[in-house]
Amino acid sequence: MNRTLVFDVKNHIGENIMLQGWICQIRPLGKINFVILRDRTGIVQTIVLNPKIDVSGLERESAVAIYGKPKTEKQAPGGFEVEVTGIEVIEKAQSPLPFEVNRATELTNVKIDTILDHRPFSLRNQELAGIFRVQAEIVRAFADFMRSEGFLQMHTSKIISAGTEGGTNLFSIQYFEQKAYLAQSPQFYKQMMVGAGYERVFEVGFVYRAEDHATSRHINEYLSLDFEMGFIESEQDVINEEIRLLKYVFDSVRKNCAEELKLHNSELQEINSIPQLRLSEAVKILKEKFNKNMEVENDLDPESERLICEYSKKEFNSDFVYITHYPASGRPFYTMPAEEGLTKGFDLLYKGLEVTTGSQRINNYQMLVDNMKKFGLKPENFEFYLEIFRYGMPPHGGLAIGTERLTQQILNLKNIREASLFPRDRFRLTP
Amino acid sequence: MNRTLVFDVKNHIGENIMLQGWICQIRPLGKINFVILRDRTGIVQTIVLNPKIDVSGLERESAVAIYGKPKTEKQAPGGFEVEVTGIEVIEKAQSPLPFEVNRATELTNVKIDTILDHRPFSLRNQELAGIFRVQAEIVRAFADFMRSEGFLQMHTSKIISAGTEGGTNLFSIQYFEQKAYLAQSPQFYKQMMVGAGYERVFEVGFVYRAEDHATSRHINEYLSLDFEMGFIESEQDVINEEIRLLKYVFDSVRKNCAEELKLHNSELQEINSIPQLRLSEAVKILKEKFNKNMEVENDLDPESERLICEYSKKEFNSDFVYITHYPASGRPFYTMPAEEGLTKGFDLLYKGLEVTTGSQRINNYQMLVDNMKKFGLKPENFEFYLEIFRYGMPPHGGLAIGTERLTQQILNLKNIREASLFPRDRFRLTP
Repeated sequence: MNRTLVFDVKNHIGENIMLQGWICQIRPLGKINFVILRDRTGIVQTIVLNPKIDVSGLERESAVAIYGKPKTEKQAPGGFEVEVTGIEVIEKAQSPLPFEVNRATELTNVKIDTILDHRPFSLRNQELAGIFRVQAEIVRAFADFMRSEGFLQMHTSKIISAGTEGGTNLFSIQYFEQKAYLAQSPQFYKQMMVGAGYERVFEVGFVYRAEDHATSRHINEYLSLDFEMGFIESEQDVINEEIRLLKYVFDSVRKNCAEELKLHNSELQEINSIPQLRLSEAVKILKEKFNKNMEVENDLDPESERLICEYSKKEFNSDFVYITHYPASGRPFYTMPAEEGLTKGFDLLYKGLEVTTGSQRINNYQMLVDNMKKFGLKPENFEFYLEIFRYGMPPHGGLAIGTERLTQQILNLKNIREASLFPRDRFRLTP
Repeated sequence: MNRTLVFDVKNHIGENIMLQGWICQIRPLGKINFVILRDRTGIVQTIVLNPKIDVSGLERESAVAIYGKPKTEKQAPGGFEVEVTGIEVIEKAQSPLPFEVNRATELTNVKIDTILDHRPFSLRNQELAGIFRVQAEIVRAFADFMRSEGFLQMHTSKIISAGTEGGTNLFSIQYFEQKAYLAQSPQFYKQMMVGAGYERVFEVGFVYRAEDHATSRHINEYLSLDFEMGFIESEQDVINEEIRLLKYVFDSVRKNCAEELKLHNSELQEINSIPQLRLSEAVKILKEKFNKNMEVENDLDPESERLICEYSKKEFNSDFVYITHYPASGRPFYTMPAEEGLTKGFDLLYKGLEVTTGSQRINNYQMLVDNMKKFGLKPENFEFYLEIFRYGMPPHGGLAIGTERLTQQILNLKNIREASLFPRDRFRLTP
């Protein structure tokens, strides 16, 4: 007998069907028993009226097949229920369960570390499971949008011989008899692929930062959404591309993950334009409106990011704000300089958190070599990267979006670990 | 002035346009000069009639903007050319070039290692560039098909504390003060995610094998296309899913990469069904038809894979053939046993090369623990994997496809390195 999925039950009223899934809840009411079944498409109420069907031995979260006949029933959730003709246990669940997963409210009492220790089991909870449905939709929408704009998806090596930023915060690997590192970003590769002639490339891939942080906004392995585009006029072309991308991603998530957004009480703002502030303006606003003096004026600290977003929400009614014109001292060597020691680098803040870093890049070979030296790097160590700059590198720029951070902010999650299926942090290597 | 892409030139006959791209070729014919321009969408012939426009200083592969007016010209490729009104060099290319890239035939004399040493530059060659357009299309089609079948895309950690197959062939990482490894496959995670309630998951991600091979069919970092599905009846459900997947992928590549297939003289066979042979039958065929005696009868060696594909082509007119019923001694501990020491594991061979490994998996907790012990593994080291098997793990199975191998075989490439953008092998760590 073919399986009927829960979302499809309403189309089989009066027919004999077989459901498969997990027992979500058992409500024994004496002569009448309710068994709530969950599969990947939803939850359905089944009702056991036949006294010969014994539900006393059933354990919650067991994998089962339920045979029965759907019928309309005004009082049931969704307006129908399935009258059970047989229950077959496929794999019985042990008891007790690690924690309750069936009602979202009960999970708020479970610590994040307990959830992560029991990660697969925790996803039997629909609210938590929804996080990764939203994340999958973000990734799908990102890739589809980029493709529709003529970008080629690429997959570049994560095992590298030299770091993008000169060797700090790298995890080292024993690669046969050589020493190698985990890639911090596909930065060099995406630039090289622009120069290879693809012009427009994107990548969805893990990157690695051996940063010693233990905060709610850092993990050491994260999924980076990268793109890079050639023949641009300035970093504004990159920013405009991202605004259109984010509009597409948000429209997709709003449309295809309505249920998940509802479970997380998240309403996604319509994106049309996004305000921009120069870093110097942001610093001034922090001083004047929030009485906050920055110690170093080449980047924003976490508190400043929150305050500037507060300002952006109030002044421009925007959850997003671009910070532009960072000084060269706070940006990587490949960033295109602008006037007065500034650069064509930018960040995007969303609800108080940096979710994107990008820039126009240097495309002239000599300028790039000179800048490397200024940063104390040896160009001879980066020959594999520099070569294509000798053969006609067009003006180009790009950016990287942190997938987990974007997911976290979209769903208003407290900790970035909640938005990573199997997070790797300062101490966590399992599951 | 807005840029016009090469593919769009034919729609602007008689208008003033600006092209941007790379100089592919310069043909000085005295008073008339031809400059061939390449951008990401194609190649176009431009003609310089105005003697004031000096082409003598132009270098091939420079990034340029060409201003001009398209006109119909029967003798030009495609039936039109662009009459040049101005040329602006954006970034001049150095001379000489590492090797010729403009005519495919000339590249056959360039060694694979030279190509890889100059990887970005080599992709200025349209034949080589086409390899990664085909690969991107394979990945897109894989992901789109899986999504259309209700599979959720997941991204699981590549930094792990224990290996899938018990600790051999792992690259080690220094993870802060702990020792960790690069993941050999998302095997455990995809099973865990089936049990988490998603039922159907897929992943596109790099995996790592520290195998000491130096062959034309091995690289140490490869892109694995994985899927796993729950509530199956047997491994035949997995095989059927893959046949439909491959049909979709091949139809997509045939439709969307016609030009690239042509450049590689590749004609993709229509996939309808794929023959299956038990391993014992394959061994018998090798003996009887090819006079080849296997030393070990629990797997096929590379020569046997080629011979069996020869047989499959001749007997069934199929480039593909499944080998099924491998003995337990040659398969991982999580493989579902079948009768007489055999398993529900299978491989898929394509044009002489293994491109897929899959199986039904063990879903009963006790059976899995017992099998681990039989394989000399300690269940207590795999608690993070085993836990979900205690809470109702449905019958499930899945497989992994090697993206570079599939690309290699589709395009009839000699070496798998040609199908990897930045391959990592026994010795290569750059570019």
